[in-house]
Amino acid sequence: MDSNKAYPMKGGDGMSSYTNNSSYQKSLSDVAMSLISEAIAEKLDVAVCGSPFRIADLGCSVGPNTLIVVENIINSVQLKYDQHSFPTPEFQVFFNDHASNDFNTLFKTLPSNKQYHAAGVPGSFYTRLFPRASLHVIHSSFALHWLSKVPQEVIEKDSRAWNKGRLHYGCADNEVVMAYRQQHMKDVDGFLKARAEEVASGGMVVVLVPGRPNEVPHQECIGNVLFEVLGCCLLAMAKEGKIEEEKVDSLNIPIYYSSPHELEEIVDRNGCFRIEKMEVMPHIAEPETKDAAGRLAMGVRVGVEGVLKGCLQEETIDELFESYRKRLEQVPSLYSSGGAAIIFLVLAKKES
Amino acid sequence: MDSNKAYPMKGGDGMSSYTNNSSYQKSLSDVAMSLISEAIAEKLDVAVCGSPFRIADLGCSVGPNTLIVVENIINSVQLKYDQHSFPTPEFQVFFNDHASNDFNTLFKTLPSNKQYHAAGVPGSFYTRLFPRASLHVIHSSFALHWLSKVPQEVIEKDSRAWNKGRLHYGCADNEVVMAYRQQHMKDVDGFLKARAEEVASGGMVVVLVPGRPNEVPHQECIGNVLFEVLGCCLLAMAKEGKIEEEKVDSLNIPIYYSSPHELEEIVDRNGCFRIEKMEVMPHIAEPETKDAAGRLAMGVRVGVEGVLKGCLQEETIDELFESYRKRLEQVPSLYSSGGAAIIFLVLAKKES
Repeated sequence: MDSNKAYPMKGGDGMSSYTNNSSYQKSLSDVAMSLISEAIAEKLDVAVCGSPFRIADLGCSVGPNTLIVVENIINSVQLKYDQHSFPTPEFQVFFNDHASNDFNTLFKTLPSNKQYHAAGVPGSFYTRLFPRASLHVIHSSFALHWLSKVPQEVIEKDSRAWNKGRLHYGCADNEVVMAYRQQHMKDVDGFLKARAEEVASGGMVVVLVPGRPNEVPHQECIGNVLFEVLGCCLLAMAKEGKIEEEKVDSLNIPIYYSSPHELEEIVDRNGCFRIEKMEVMPHIAEPETKDAAGRLAMGVRVGVEGVLKGCLQEETIDELFESYRKRLEQVPSLYSSGGAAIIFLVLAKKES
Repeated sequence: MDSNKAYPMKGGDGMSSYTNNSSYQKSLSDVAMSLISEAIAEKLDVAVCGSPFRIADLGCSVGPNTLIVVENIINSVQLKYDQHSFPTPEFQVFFNDHASNDFNTLFKTLPSNKQYHAAGVPGSFYTRLFPRASLHVIHSSFALHWLSKVPQEVIEKDSRAWNKGRLHYGCADNEVVMAYRQQHMKDVDGFLKARAEEVASGGMVVVLVPGRPNEVPHQECIGNVLFEVLGCCLLAMAKEGKIEEEKVDSLNIPIYYSSPHELEEIVDRNGCFRIEKMEVMPHIAEPETKDAAGRLAMGVRVGVEGVLKGCLQEETIDELFESYRKRLEQVPSLYSSGGAAIIFLVLAKKES
């Protein structure tokens, strides 16, 4: 096990190549692709997989990312079958996300020349989604940091973990942090239990999850700082009477940024899986430019707009993100310092 | 094999009980459910099915019909496992329809307490959709009368099968009828070939398809008559200059009403399946009332609106169905006479 090994970003030859958001994403995605390919090459036991070979992408959203990942997995598996001179298996790919995901759009964008049988699976990946021992590669990217729900304690007024005046736990009291952490531990444990039943003999689970390096405390984790600033902007609007303060109290973003140590601990406690590989892709800071601030504000909006929409009017959200963007432009150190990481995890089921 | 046995409609005690369209549908659905349950009880070989038990509903649309059918299949299979004292299998259900189907709505209406793992599968059932030998019960209701496309010849001006001035083949020249028939034979053959690869050992294919009794000629088949009348209404609007005549020429509804003999012939020629059961549920004529005419007009509209929408404006379609409804009210014999049938077919794969 290569625990916590830092993995250098591929592509680009200096900071300037990261100034464009899409090239940063692209590099990240290239690294992720090679990590997945490597993991399949080294760890997948194709001798027992047979045909059909079943792949699931959990938290797939609508693409094109999920389609690219799936293509990459299939190519890597195919290569391994070829190397062992096994006949090409049939591939069946399950695209999973919440029932509220736009599967219609996903289905319409499936490539017409795809080399696999496709299926969409609605439901939370914190519960069982597939028959026992039916999947060979289970993949999930940028999804496991979402909690199954806001922890109950942080929205209860008489709880010690009541998260008054904040959207998130980053700079909150320890009780709030713990409530978020507990929910994350419970959720990931549920994820692992479900996957342990679903993964076939010889199969593997591959997870990419945004988190924070072990040495970075919660209040310095960039994701948390970004939500803290957003919360401050929201609170400012409440003070101006544009939003009820109760709304700010009741709103909480159900995201937790785990550290590699925390994830290891959850996997160990859960007991179903062995960590075959854990690597940490370091965060590349955004440059301190107006463009970068605007991109970040938009990125955060895309991520959490669904959470806010249940509570705030469209115009309020527009105004909120306008003031948020300005704040990030004014104080770029908010996003250019601090720490963040993408944690890459390969799990193999322990033999019982 | 009980070929062409007429099956009495259950429920209701006289004509009056069919005056309500939904009670008619309900009776039909009750009979279909019992037929499916019977077929599973008599023909499914659960000893070789094992777990997971995989079910596909092909041409599922958005429910609730598909959910009711699936529930019925699972209960019938469960009963058989119980009778043989086999442990309860896990069920995985695949809901298939075109990629343009509204899977989002389907997924949102899946019962929260369902006893199966659900998946949506986008694509045409005239091609392969699933891995080899992976399904135990394949079901398709009211879907196989849709052709994969309008036969090419009927829209080509210089073809002998050019279907000038008509929407359908019912009262058209023999060349047009043959073009539709050929397309249907080719499509059903493709359906059978794909299913023969997908069905698991011991599994079965159950099909319910609207068609016409053997003794009823095309021009007296009620479905054909209804489309013929619709075509006349459209042509009348063209004569009044409300639609271009070319549009009427180019529009053709891709539906074919097969007879039990024709279906038998296709299955025999295809060679992959043995007909285990074929039954014909007779048509119950609608009463000659204004309400019935309106219901029928609406029923036809729901069915073919998608075909017309690609070619006609919304207002034109409204006007067309208004004149259609009036025509059916004025000449109710158009729909109360003639013949129609729902053909129920149980297929088992021939051992190779």
